[in-house]
Amino acid sequence: MADLLYRPRHSLVAQSSKSEEMSQPFNGDGFGVGWYAPEIDSYPCVMKAAVPAWSNTNAKSLSTKIRSGLVFAHIRGASPGMAVQQTNCHPFSFGPFLFMHNGSIDHFARLRRRLQQGLSDRAFESIEGTTDSEHAFAVFLDLVGDPAAPHTPEALRTALVATIARLADLARGIDASASLYLNFAVTDGVSTVVSRFAAGANAAASLHYSAGSRYVVDGEDGDMLETDAPTFGAVMVASEPLTRRPEDWKTVPENHTLTIDSGLRIGLDPIAL
Amino acid sequence: MADLLYRPRHSLVAQSSKSEEMSQPFNGDGFGVGWYAPEIDSYPCVMKAAVPAWSNTNAKSLSTKIRSGLVFAHIRGASPGMAVQQTNCHPFSFGPFLFMHNGSIDHFARLRRRLQQGLSDRAFESIEGTTDSEHAFAVFLDLVGDPAAPHTPEALRTALVATIARLADLARGIDASASLYLNFAVTDGVSTVVSRFAAGANAAASLHYSAGSRYVVDGEDGDMLETDAPTFGAVMVASEPLTRRPEDWKTVPENHTLTIDSGLRIGLDPIAL
Amino acid sequence: MADLLYRPRHSLVAQSSKSEEMSQPFNGDGFGVGWYAPEIDSYPCVMKAAVPAWSNTNAKSLSTKIRSGLVFAHIRGASPGMAVQQTNCHPFSFGPFLFMHNGSIDHFARLRRRLQQGLSDRAFESIEGTTDSEHAFAVFLDLVGDPAAPHTPEALRTALVATIARLADLARGIDASASLYLNFAVTDGVSTVVSRFAAGANAAASLHYSAGSRYVVDGEDGDMLETDAPTFGAVMVASEPLTRRPEDWKTVPENHTLTIDSGLRIGLDPIAL
Amino acid sequence: MADLLYRPRHSLVAQSSKSEEMSQPFNGDGFGVGWYAPEIDSYPCVMKAAVPAWSNTNAKSLSTKIRSGLVFAHIRGASPGMAVQQTNCHPFSFGPFLFMHNGSIDHFARLRRRLQQGLSDRAFESIEGTTDSEHAFAVFLDLVGDPAAPHTPEALRTALVATIARLADLARGIDASASLYLNFAVTDGVSTVVSRFAAGANAAASLHYSAGSRYVVDGEDGDMLETDAPTFGAVMVASEPLTRRPEDWKTVPENHTLTIDSGLRIGLDPIAL
Repeated sequence: MADLLYRPRHSLVAQSSKSEEMSQPFNGDGFGVGWYAPEIDSYPCVMKAAVPAWSNTNAKSLSTKIRSGLVFAHIRGASPGMAVQQTNCHPFSFGPFLFMHNGSIDHFARLRRRLQQGLSDRAFESIEGTTDSEHAFAVFLDLVGDPAAPHTPEALRTALVATIARLADLARGIDASASLYLNFAVTDGVSTVVSRFAAGANAAASLHYSAGSRYVVDGEDGDMLETDAPTFGAVMVASEPLTRRPEDWKTVPENHTLTIDSGLRIGLDPIAL
Repeated sequence: MADLLYRPRHSLVAQSSKSEEMSQPFNGDGFGVGWYAPEIDSYPCVMKAAVPAWSNTNAKSLSTKIRSGLVFAHIRGASPGMAVQQTNCHPFSFGPFLFMHNGSIDHFARLRRRLQQGLSDRAFESIEGTTDSEHAFAVFLDLVGDPAAPHTPEALRTALVATIARLADLARGIDASASLYLNFAVTDGVSTVVSRFAAGANAAASLHYSAGSRYVVDGEDGDMLETDAPTFGAVMVASEPLTRRPEDWKTVPENHTLTIDSGLRIGLDPIAL
Repeated sequence: MADLLYRPRHSLVAQSSKSEEMSQPFNGDGFGVGWYAPEIDSYPCVMKAAVPAWSNTNAKSLSTKIRSGLVFAHIRGASPGMAVQQTNCHPFSFGPFLFMHNGSIDHFARLRRRLQQGLSDRAFESIEGTTDSEHAFAVFLDLVGDPAAPHTPEALRTALVATIARLADLARGIDASASLYLNFAVTDGVSTVVSRFAAGANAAASLHYSAGSRYVVDGEDGDMLETDAPTFGAVMVASEPLTRRPEDWKTVPENHTLTIDSGLRIGLDPIAL
Repeated sequence: MADLLYRPRHSLVAQSSKSEEMSQPFNGDGFGVGWYAPEIDSYPCVMKAAVPAWSNTNAKSLSTKIRSGLVFAHIRGASPGMAVQQTNCHPFSFGPFLFMHNGSIDHFARLRRRLQQGLSDRAFESIEGTTDSEHAFAVFLDLVGDPAAPHTPEALRTALVATIARLADLARGIDASASLYLNFAVTDGVSTVVSRFAAGANAAASLHYSAGSRYVVDGEDGDMLETDAPTFGAVMVASEPLTRRPEDWKTVPENHTLTIDSGLRIGLDPIAL
């Protein structure tokens, strides 16, 4: 985990104070990480704190000891008016799922009630904080069905796209030109689906991915090793590249999802609402 | 403020680690204080933190400098499952109102949705945390009417009793024998109403009051000075007595409100649902 | 880790709010845990937070995923005047060592300078907080020698006893009848030494141990399974018993150390200053 | 206080996330404010928290109610390796004094011991955290003499300059070309002295001041009103201008102090070591 979060020059935690592609250069309102230990059970372990990533000594110590085949991590820059508290930090978890979000939803304060009215009791009661992001996760939970059943990558993707459609409907019900920035990542511990989506005037937030035989960190530099094999040994998705070589990374096209299955096969599909 | 919170042997902060009448002897899940500065405006000032009162050095420093004619203070022992975070600390505020709660509501997780559906948008959107207490305050806000208008003590009391009735209805709709412990305190900065209420099997949580010409702290002892005058110069209401002499205090009868008006006249009235 | 910290009725975290043998019934000023992952490296992983153990959701999640052959955990009740902050939480770590303390040292504010003057630069600069406990660890670090070299259990014990002697000397230099309560635990990740020591008028703080073939948790009950073998498979040391059967536990005699070597052989030795 | 901290477009809290003159654009490692209420006593009130200023809702609420003739406020960007904790936040206080620092001292880890050895017990024991800044304050406390006695502005200035000289001596004792950035501010609640000082290769950190008849905030703009009178009604000193008009501000020359006496007379004097 330290190879992703701390060791390289462009690690996620380095990005927390020197972001190059975000609208503001720092994200100091919280830090969270979730990962799986399938040798123990199928539920993720989650650590979150409403302190800047750069001063989180617990996460730094822990990252040197955790090895996992599937890690989610998130640095938060709170939207104005959203409380800086642990329950508002990402990733959110429920059953086997982890979920995180980079973006925002116009008019969330006004559409929240209508969104909540459409939720099942279980999804409604899963909400502990106040963010648009966690509410989007609750919508997803209702759309994906029984958390205890296995899910195909396609089922995860279908539920995530339907979540985006539902949120877009709600926002446009209030304002036809509402802006939504919905870069989501969701996993059930087996497959992962990531979206890059924007509605309204502006471009979607950045989203990149890198795939290769292996990700290695040498000194302060992270590298994705190339592969000729038809399958990958390592896949990373990030708002900003983590490795030193720009050519390691490709951009997820706007209004597309990226799906990664249990064999690390990746697929890009347009989001058709 | 230090004369209430810190200086006497039985101060509120001393009670936070050595409560004598509560079901558990300590309340370490948060601390909040609210007060008014009418020479500046009619809105309360609120400081809250999700740390134990006994280690809150900011509150200790501040208390030595704040003099106010009307102070609310609350030490929190979180109900199981309720997040320990600042937005869940009392007192809650909206417009000129402060509100706090000692108690709990059976089946809150299940009745929360129905409660929220009955709220106005303004009251719904005022909710920042997840406690039953803050939801009760939202019910009160809808019942008390325009926060910008002046309120008589009777109007505050009527709205508080109606809040209790509404909560009891909601809980009994789920379970006819549901327990509710609703010791509330509310003020608009002018008058204050406090309730001692329980429904279901057990006795209400403790509630005491003390009135006299003046409250003075001498060394480690707080005393309420007696008066023969028809009106009082100081009134205190607390879950546990703050002064050294038990005879300074009277008990609020169960299922009664205590009303304190702008002239510090006090009235006890039964809660008839 | 959850079998020690959370699952049983008398888990360490349950003890944080319902201690039965401590001078105060709760310890809400911090929580820390340290453990080893020898398959990765010889340094401990440490997580500490200045929040009550009972509301630390990160530790609860993490504990379900961490399995380790050697775990230290500590719930803190701060001595008066000692800041409630992460750097004052136990266990303290340096190189391969973990160290924690239950107790206090009379006149620490006055003896701190003299203690610091006797430290090496390395030990002095290792101190991040302000507790007597961390200063005791700094004394130990100088007495135990090169942290990178292997240490026999006897070498750890000798250094811990010398630390106690040095602290007793310093306190008695100020006041011949000074009280010291020095229940320490130290490990290098291989062997562990624990002390139960008091000087001055009163009895030492409680300290118990339990050894058997295996520690198992069944529902809400923890049990130490007996063994006839000459060696043990599990050893626990705690200020209060963690399992349901009192007969699982023996008391460490006052002014003794308990040493546990890499083969889980245990030895009790008097502390001769 | 809100007119300084929150209301204007370039308020101190706005600067905490959009600094224009600092080496990094944000300072999210803590926030502190200290002020005097001479109608109560001569000791400052201090509120500090190790959270970013921009999410400190307590400070925001409090600032609307506090009026004081003398306010210190500080946003912290921690030096690497310095713990992010409340005891490391500025301003520091002792008796009637407040003290804060923008800058750093080369080789502090190594010179700390020698610095401490030269302190009186009282100054040594006043140190609660680990920053170079608080240690500089301890040096000042020894040099300024009895905190209970009144101090002339000249006496404060002499002690501050002697503090700078002592720190420069200590640093140069380790490395003749050591860099020191010593922008200090100190007050006894009556007069205030501020320094702008650098030794070593680079320029001193920025420091500006503004004086006029009155500081007023109109909408999102703060203005210092001009005056023809020989004395001022308002003086502000800041690392970055707080008002909209650049012409309101003058720069403190490098290696100078700015002294403000009880009549708001200001003096600029070179620092001669």
